Amino acid sequence: MEKDQYFMKLALEMSASAKGKTNPNPIVGAVIVKDGVIVGSGIHRKAGEPHAEVHAFKMAGSHAEGATLYVTLEPCSHYGKTPPCANLVKDSKVSRVVVATTDPNPEVAGRGIQLLRNAGIEVEVGVLEEEAKKLNERFIHNMTTGLPFVISKFAMTLDGKIATHNGHSKWITSESARKEVHQLRNEIDGILVGVGTVIADNPALTTRLPETQGKNPTRIILDTNLRTPIDSQVLQTVAAKTIIVTSDEVDMERAKPFEAKGVKIIFVSKETNGLDLYAALRELYRLGITDILVEGGGAVNASFLNAGLIDKYYIYIAPKVLGGKDSITPFTGPNPDTMIAAKHLYFDDFQKLGEDIRIIAYPKQGDEK
Amino acid sequence: MEKDQYFMKLALEMSASAKGKTNPNPIVGAVIVKDGVIVGSGIHRKAGEPHAEVHAFKMAGSHAEGATLYVTLEPCSHYGKTPPCANLVKDSKVSRVVVATTDPNPEVAGRGIQLLRNAGIEVEVGVLEEEAKKLNERFIHNMTTGLPFVISKFAMTLDGKIATHNGHSKWITSESARKEVHQLRNEIDGILVGVGTVIADNPALTTRLPETQGKNPTRIILDTNLRTPIDSQVLQTVAAKTIIVTSDEVDMERAKPFEAKGVKIIFVSKETNGLDLYAALRELYRLGITDILVEGGGAVNASFLNAGLIDKYYIYIAPKVLGGKDSITPFTGPNPDTMIAAKHLYFDDFQKLGEDIRIIAYPKQGDEK
Repeated sequence: MEKDQYFMKLALEMSASAKGKTNPNPIVGAVIVKDGVIVGSGIHRKAGEPHAEVHAFKMAGSHAEGATLYVTLEPCSHYGKTPPCANLVKDSKVSRVVVATTDPNPEVAGRGIQLLRNAGIEVEVGVLEEEAKKLNERFIHNMTTGLPFVISKFAMTLDGKIATHNGHSKWITSESARKEVHQLRNEIDGILVGVGTVIADNPALTTRLPETQGKNPTRIILDTNLRTPIDSQVLQTVAAKTIIVTSDEVDMERAKPFEAKGVKIIFVSKETNGLDLYAALRELYRLGITDILVEGGGAVNASFLNAGLIDKYYIYIAPKVLGGKDSITPFTGPNPDTMIAAKHLYFDDFQKLGEDIRIIAYPKQGDEK
Repeated sequence: MEKDQYFMKLALEMSASAKGKTNPNPIVGAVIVKDGVIVGSGIHRKAGEPHAEVHAFKMAGSHAEGATLYVTLEPCSHYGKTPPCANLVKDSKVSRVVVATTDPNPEVAGRGIQLLRNAGIEVEVGVLEEEAKKLNERFIHNMTTGLPFVISKFAMTLDGKIATHNGHSKWITSESARKEVHQLRNEIDGILVGVGTVIADNPALTTRLPETQGKNPTRIILDTNLRTPIDSQVLQTVAAKTIIVTSDEVDMERAKPFEAKGVKIIFVSKETNGLDLYAALRELYRLGITDILVEGGGAVNASFLNAGLIDKYYIYIAPKVLGGKDSITPFTGPNPDTMIAAKHLYFDDFQKLGEDIRIIAYPKQGDEK
């Protein structure tokens, strides 16, 4: 039904404005429609604040009776920071509920919809489901894996170089691409680099946006041998929190000067090809990190790739050719012997961004990532 | 004037169908319009055959009188394989001539237009000039530099690899991209690879198209030390001609077994970073090669890049990530120390091609290529 798609699209578009603001919660939008007119609308703005349905029903008041509720995610059925929305919907006397997609949260997972149907409300599920799932890809991943959603981001020349042989990389892309990267940081919980990048570039890894203050993601350093210099910019904990992931073979005493500066140290085991990234991610998720932007370099990127832990790719390609036998490429690591070893992706989107091209890609379903 | 653009666009579109078929001549289309109706039309199909104007006037006959001629390139004013078209135009009694762009051939270069104006014909120049110049980019480059137009073509993974560390590269891109490459070969005079590729892959370097016979470009091997194996597929001169470019330090006696197989050997001097490519290109142009597809590998590509001799780029990016510290990248060669050393390009076009993305780029004007 065309009208259903129309109103669901509105709910999705409204909700998208809160992207990156609702973690660890999902992004949700709701509109209540009676006789073709929106009588209530709302989105979930931030964890701890009311759910989308609450705002929408508050606006609608008694107009909700006999109306249709469009909601981008199944109304919750469990007591979290707020009471279950499914009860609210039931009490509102709406006659029909249209849901884009079910809630992957194992505490909900269809129970919200069942509760409404049991109350005699007509429920339709699956309107613009694909769009809704994409908007909540981070949340769905969290719920189904118990791990943060990992985005690999890199900027390269057209011939696949992220730096010269000696690590020089300023700048590959133009202003607009670099600005977008700060926008990405503004929407994410954690930003991860290897200690090599910290030593070579001493970056602040903070969000620098021209107009808004911006949110500073937690800085995460992969540092097997705890070599992060104690006077690094990333250890200035005023701007943002910092977590160092290191090997459990490192003497815990050595962690103390870092901890004294407010840095959290995570110890994980060392495997053949480096730190146990799966264990690190599990712990980071437990600490409240729901999504991570991995900003390299090449060896760190390859570790995530080979562990099958990259969920999305943002690639910026500059209109430049660098050359150089030993120039650094975005993914290094162990040498595969045949092209068959390549991980398969699919291109989701590509567009011009200033002078550059930005590609968004995902691991191909069915490929052993 | 909108009508002028409309008819010029038609002439351009018709002429584009002969792309790659007119070498060393330009691509030209012409339409003759009287009272809004096309009374004559023609294109230049092939070197040695009549020019576009000749076909168009033949069709128009006496209808040409008082009509307007639209022609994508200035009518020629010199005696080549055919008499000058400017005379034909003058005699046709058309009252107006609209030209997209002047002929860069130093033997013409405005003289054709002057001849018409002197005859009292109204001449307008510059309608859809940019499109016309792009369509004849190969010809314009030939005329202004005396060198073949060089296209660098490579297929890489999303992380900038063209092969594994041991040279395995089958296949990076999907069927549609590989098919397009054979279409490119079909439109070009020469295809160039390094002897490394010949030794590693023993390719035939012929054009394989499903439906048409296809034109086999001349195979050009860069081979400083004349290491091409005498039983290589590229030395089977039945399918296509082969030229080997080697160093003038190589004993000419060693060339004899190659020459006996019908292979042409070009001797050029050896510079610090390899063969003198400028001299090689000059000689290839003298031999009638007007455009060349450089198909690598990395070292050959880098030589052309660093000599400032790449005029256009076709890049195919596959949705795959390979990784590998020693995997091969599209441009290798000497190591630049800073990002400032990168050559600047601009992206002219990018689109999906099957699963892959194809980017077309040009060296940026004003950049020291």
